[in-house]
Amino acid sequence: MEHRKNQEGWVRAVSPVLSPPSLKDNTGDTDRLLKGLRKAMDAADVRIPFSLIKTLSETLRRNDFRVTAILYEDGGAWHLVDVRGREKRGGPYGASVDLGSSTVVVRILDLAEGRILAESSFHNPQIQIGTDILTRIHFAAREGGLEKLQGLVRDRLNEELSALGAGCGIPEKGISALSMAGNTTMTHLFLGLDPYGLCREPYIPVVNRAPVLKARDLGVAIHPEGPVLIFPNVGSYFGGDLIAGILASGMTRHHEVSMLVDVGTNAEVVIGNDEWLMGCAGAAGPALEGGVADMGMMAGPGVIDRVSIDPDSGEFRIHTIGDQPPVGICGSGLIDLAAQLFLAGMVDLRGKFVPERCGNRLIRSDGVSHLVVVPEEESAAPGPLTLAQTDLDGLIRSKAAMYTILTTITNTVGIPFDALNRFYVAGTFGSYIDPASAVTIGMIPDLPLDTYVSVGNTSLEGATRALLRTADRDEALSIRDRITYLELNVNQEFMNLFSAAKFLPHTNVDLFPSVRNRIHGTVRS
Amino acid sequence: MEHRKNQEGWVRAVSPVLSPPSLKDNTGDTDRLLKGLRKAMDAADVRIPFSLIKTLSETLRRNDFRVTAILYEDGGAWHLVDVRGREKRGGPYGASVDLGSSTVVVRILDLAEGRILAESSFHNPQIQIGTDILTRIHFAAREGGLEKLQGLVRDRLNEELSALGAGCGIPEKGISALSMAGNTTMTHLFLGLDPYGLCREPYIPVVNRAPVLKARDLGVAIHPEGPVLIFPNVGSYFGGDLIAGILASGMTRHHEVSMLVDVGTNAEVVIGNDEWLMGCAGAAGPALEGGVADMGMMAGPGVIDRVSIDPDSGEFRIHTIGDQPPVGICGSGLIDLAAQLFLAGMVDLRGKFVPERCGNRLIRSDGVSHLVVVPEEESAAPGPLTLAQTDLDGLIRSKAAMYTILTTITNTVGIPFDALNRFYVAGTFGSYIDPASAVTIGMIPDLPLDTYVSVGNTSLEGATRALLRTADRDEALSIRDRITYLELNVNQEFMNLFSAAKFLPHTNVDLFPSVRNRIHGTVRS
Repeated sequence: MEHRKNQEGWVRAVSPVLSPPSLKDNTGDTDRLLKGLRKAMDAADVRIPFSLIKTLSETLRRNDFRVTAILYEDGGAWHLVDVRGREKRGGPYGASVDLGSSTVVVRILDLAEGRILAESSFHNPQIQIGTDILTRIHFAAREGGLEKLQGLVRDRLNEELSALGAGCGIPEKGISALSMAGNTTMTHLFLGLDPYGLCREPYIPVVNRAPVLKARDLGVAIHPEGPVLIFPNVGSYFGGDLIAGILASGMTRHHEVSMLVDVGTNAEVVIGNDEWLMGCAGAAGPALEGGVADMGMMAGPGVIDRVSIDPDSGEFRIHTIGDQPPVGICGSGLIDLAAQLFLAGMVDLRGKFVPERCGNRLIRSDGVSHLVVVPEEESAAPGPLTLAQTDLDGLIRSKAAMYTILTTITNTVGIPFDALNRFYVAGTFGSYIDPASAVTIGMIPDLPLDTYVSVGNTSLEGATRALLRTADRDEALSIRDRITYLELNVNQEFMNLFSAAKFLPHTNVDLFPSVRNRIHGTVRS
Repeated sequence: MEHRKNQEGWVRAVSPVLSPPSLKDNTGDTDRLLKGLRKAMDAADVRIPFSLIKTLSETLRRNDFRVTAILYEDGGAWHLVDVRGREKRGGPYGASVDLGSSTVVVRILDLAEGRILAESSFHNPQIQIGTDILTRIHFAAREGGLEKLQGLVRDRLNEELSALGAGCGIPEKGISALSMAGNTTMTHLFLGLDPYGLCREPYIPVVNRAPVLKARDLGVAIHPEGPVLIFPNVGSYFGGDLIAGILASGMTRHHEVSMLVDVGTNAEVVIGNDEWLMGCAGAAGPALEGGVADMGMMAGPGVIDRVSIDPDSGEFRIHTIGDQPPVGICGSGLIDLAAQLFLAGMVDLRGKFVPERCGNRLIRSDGVSHLVVVPEEESAAPGPLTLAQTDLDGLIRSKAAMYTILTTITNTVGIPFDALNRFYVAGTFGSYIDPASAVTIGMIPDLPLDTYVSVGNTSLEGATRALLRTADRDEALSIRDRITYLELNVNQEFMNLFSAAKFLPHTNVDLFPSVRNRIHGTVRS
């Protein structure tokens, strides 16, 4: 990501030239400042909040009318956030936030320089209410539940903002603006808006596009008059995090058609270019995040993220995060493992273990076949790390759902996969997926591997960009307005596509020529 | 004052057509309402405050999406104040306020009908701190003083708004907007702004033109999201009450040049037409308000407001307010009295009592000549009501100051008095002045009496109009921006004019031909 010296921000510091008042010019203090700012900014509409008027006379006089104002633009007008002595250097500062249901990531930005000063993350404390979103929505309906959920994440965010800001030498209230992207439910909870309608037909958010709010309306620990930009959503299942992702991917700046996939419990997919955009979201199942496998877990030290199997010796080569003794497997490791098992002929095209190939790695436990990935003696968990047939079945359903969704949306717009210029894979989890493995199991189409671009935490990146550049903020709002949301109807056609995709890589192996050529002889037969 | 059915207000009730949400149209509740309002109002920019978003989903569903919204326009955008079920009739309601330093007058308005529903007044409770403005400014500098002054008038106003509103059947929070005109100090105190700079060179207000505020910012007991329009000031000594007066007089709607005078302790004078405006304010002395004479007092029951003297018999004919036994005299009575004494030859052109004409009405007390206006036996006060020579001297200084100010401003713009189309006399006190008497003593120029128009409480009337019609609100702001403020320099020329005006009616009696012809023979000599 490139940030040049920021001339194009919607949050700015301006030092107007103000002549001190005299008998010949007895203009009021507020009007004098606004006049000076209008001239300095060549802007007709500059507005001041009432709270600043109250302290302005004192501020102007204490600083001999040599002041710097922080302002933000909204709806064509510039709104004052703060006025302070001109000698204070640096800033204005901002914060961008990716409000994830599991993890919240915060960045502190120098808005003048367009520079990231600090970044950190914390677990969303709403997890103590429930790890999944539905539990939180139900909790919000209790007496005081919504306030509790809102308070949990707000208070923790405020701590993080204060600590991060202090680390950058930014004083209390020194952060002037905040930009936040999150899914529709997380955003509703953060705003203290009842999420009741989000999970019930016809799935209506309280708000799609919130106005730019003031920090004081939300109790966010930046300057109370500072703007809080909340990324808009398209619907209950297509949130601001996706809008931020589209913005960050840059797919709307090119005429070539690209695709963006945020892989997680929900598969959120967008296709389009600088002229049109279509998006959809569908349940892919938690398998892709490593959420169901007995040994599955979120990425962390000792978690298996890469697996390869020597096709000749059948030896497993396992990589763990931080090279720690293995404790479990994450989604990207699971996809690698499935792909490698399939290529080694240990799993057949139906996704079933092939006993004669698996040999003594295959055991039975609780009446289910398990493949020993890490034997007990090498495992850091209490027992061997195994992949159950049922885990594999879950993964295959998830990958089939993903491929079906991708097929459905491309069919709808009439664009074949091979016409895609770029295929962006987003999400913290998505970043770790090996596209070759994902293609091998038929989760994503068989495109040249350099078509796949891992774009990391696009939610945070989009929130950051929108805070730094007016054009990016406006583009985010424009993306929301012009995206066509495709409602995925789970009809017979969808089910047919899904059934065909429940094979490795697919019933029609011609769709995956690169995989077909690598499939082990015994499996092909 | 004429109010037609109000189609041109900036505070409106609108009932948009909203289709209930469905799977085919899962637009968020907020966005659905805003879209409906944009269509219904043919307005691009409709905004909702955060507090309304929080309760909107419930309001929409409880009313089956049949709602009425109250909105106000500011800066080209329409801002929501409230959303409620459509069945409730009436309104929107507003309140206009004349924030006087002595008396506060409140009106309740039906903004849709353009109708005044109720009006009442109360003494400004800040009087308990000090009757004059300077005392209040000094009190504001004390610890907690400003908050005390602000709280006194706000709390009393809130009581009045609640009581008046309830009398009109308007529920709590049912008043959607408020408009207020007052002088610069009163306005500053109401806003909780430090008046320190107002009375000290170079006399700088904290604000000339306050933004449209929200009631919740000020703790005013109307709907918390309702707009509060504060009339702008031109400077410390030319306040929003005068801007409201200019608006109410209508002088800016005509090409003929008119003059507006608000008579009080300060003489505030405006001259102009639809193209230009010049204003000035100068100390006229409290005599014109009856504030210095021993027997002087504010208008009230038993206060003498009209005096005539039979030129033949020398008999005093006295009228009191409410026909009560006389207790004192107010400003208009004092002007009448002085004019009648002068015409009867009991006062000479220097403003001195003529003993041979006054006879036994003239007594001495504390070494000063006093004229007995009401003998002790007819007086409701403890003793006779008398006019001291020193009181008369004070009145003459005041009238001379007024005439000098009028001469100065007309000289400055190069317009002779007789070119004035209308001469508006404003202020509660001004309304009671008999123009003939004021001309007789040379306080105002000798124009045909039908040139003088008493326009009453123009501050309240202006505040009312600005709340009812967008064009009038905009005109008020435009008046502020285009008025030229004439700083009255008390230089040699001013003093020369003042000295010449300290005679009855003037050293140059040819300036007052109608008076010259009526002056009693003995005085002329």
